[in-house]
Amino acid sequence: MYILVTARMKTYLREQLVEKFPEATFDFKYPITEAEPHLPKADVIVTYGEDLTNEHIEQAENLKWIMVVSAGLDQMPFEKIIENNILVTNARGIHKIQMSEYVIGMLLQVYRNLPTFLENQREHVYDKRVKIEEISGKTMLIAGTGAIGQETARKAKAFDMKTIGVSRSGDKKDYFDESYTNDQLNEKLPEADFVVNVLPSTPNTDKMFNEKHFKVMKEDAIFLNMGRGTTVNEDDLIKALKENQIRHAILDVFEVEPLPEDSPLWDLENVTLTPHNSAVTSNYMPRALAIFEDNLKQFLKGEQPEVNVIDPKRGY
Amino acid sequence: MYILVTARMKTYLREQLVEKFPEATFDFKYPITEAEPHLPKADVIVTYGEDLTNEHIEQAENLKWIMVVSAGLDQMPFEKIIENNILVTNARGIHKIQMSEYVIGMLLQVYRNLPTFLENQREHVYDKRVKIEEISGKTMLIAGTGAIGQETARKAKAFDMKTIGVSRSGDKKDYFDESYTNDQLNEKLPEADFVVNVLPSTPNTDKMFNEKHFKVMKEDAIFLNMGRGTTVNEDDLIKALKENQIRHAILDVFEVEPLPEDSPLWDLENVTLTPHNSAVTSNYMPRALAIFEDNLKQFLKGEQPEVNVIDPKRGY
Repeated sequence: MYILVTARMKTYLREQLVEKFPEATFDFKYPITEAEPHLPKADVIVTYGEDLTNEHIEQAENLKWIMVVSAGLDQMPFEKIIENNILVTNARGIHKIQMSEYVIGMLLQVYRNLPTFLENQREHVYDKRVKIEEISGKTMLIAGTGAIGQETARKAKAFDMKTIGVSRSGDKKDYFDESYTNDQLNEKLPEADFVVNVLPSTPNTDKMFNEKHFKVMKEDAIFLNMGRGTTVNEDDLIKALKENQIRHAILDVFEVEPLPEDSPLWDLENVTLTPHNSAVTSNYMPRALAIFEDNLKQFLKGEQPEVNVIDPKRGY
Repeated sequence: MYILVTARMKTYLREQLVEKFPEATFDFKYPITEAEPHLPKADVIVTYGEDLTNEHIEQAENLKWIMVVSAGLDQMPFEKIIENNILVTNARGIHKIQMSEYVIGMLLQVYRNLPTFLENQREHVYDKRVKIEEISGKTMLIAGTGAIGQETARKAKAFDMKTIGVSRSGDKKDYFDESYTNDQLNEKLPEADFVVNVLPSTPNTDKMFNEKHFKVMKEDAIFLNMGRGTTVNEDDLIKALKENQIRHAILDVFEVEPLPEDSPLWDLENVTLTPHNSAVTSNYMPRALAIFEDNLKQFLKGEQPEVNVIDPKRGY
């Protein structure tokens, strides 16, 4: 059993894996160019899911299982994965704590005007008149009602917010006061003070947020995107922000990543941006590996891994 | 019925008062020097509680009731208030939403390293490696288990924290996993990742947090003070911060306010400070006046106001 790991992880985590599974051979090769010569002998690949191509899958002629230690699968070479009938599992469910904290933390920093207080501290200015607002009692619309969206809604309820969920199915989920389908998004947007986008990247969600949506949002709405950059028409968003159609955008993901140095988003006063790391705390990889280990135990017994199995035809 | 208002408030709020209570005469005089000539005829004074002296109380020979549109009463001239048997009510209970949001927002900004992300945005730097931590699962000790402490504990529970309450009585209150008396503070401090101080200023709480306490806190503990500056020995705190005995302090209150321009606190890397306005949102005064209005209705009927009546001998 040869397991090729292209996902970077701390030494202590590598050592734990090797120690826990003496019957397997682990090779930690990062980046993918280092891993390429070893692909033909790999039974299992552990990856962040952004480095594999259809060519890699063809070369990996012994490959039976890919563990993606991430949730987004939009860059996976599903064509050859389906053709070669390779099992794919991912790490969905381990992002919800970090990402729901991101939402609450970032909304509070905008509403409490934190950059001004930090600036005042640097200047030794004691100004009590800086405007502060409360997030409690507001309305949050969350597009994407999976584990992350739901945990965000749970925390929003602790701040006595009204929560509106929008998803493909429109099914009612816990912690959402109301639930609608993606088709109804535009009808519900005018009610929201906070619009939180956690949508995955699929053909259906491509540029799902565009001009038409920013136009109907409240003038003082905050738009937060921590799903995928491709789900938003970025030019339309930039235009809406420049024209103050909405109040502020909090962005962790972008159409092109890393965000190009000349993107207008960097310098817009009403944008706060982070580099697609809203979920990356030190707990991330241990949680991802806990899922991998559960699956690996079964796999080593000759059984099928069962946690977070992906339907490669649906892509998530 | 002559009501003298020395607390500054927006015009629309003044107009509402005048309109709602045609049987009373309102005079809005700010600051107290403007109000002084009118003291002798005042039946009621509405104040923030920081402008009245014993002399003012003596001059106000018709005074029956003081409404303090704040919670802290440490600057009230209780000597003459007791002597002249004047009723005092305050606005306790209206700070809890804003101040609990302050706690969660400020802890998240420190744990998520927000100042670095803001700086990186200014410099167009896309650096995914900036360290982020989760506040979920941590232990929060809250000194002061009144309305604000309890609401903070409620929100901390939504982040799956362990909550420890410390108060004069040590009584068990909702949302606290454990409750202790002030005497037991030092025993429990070593467990806390976050130490939140909401203590009022009383003779018993004077410099209650000092060297002895900072020494037993965790090395990576965050100390947050939004109660009163007098409850902390500020020199001891500065020393603890300089020597990295604790990781960070978040301070909204100070021994001397406004914080003197030459205080070392301004420039310490491990301090985030705000100018005693953690509760000052636009909802503040409407909520305070709602309490005042309930009491005023009774007072105008010749009855005793009943909401938030203060025991002047206890001072809170």
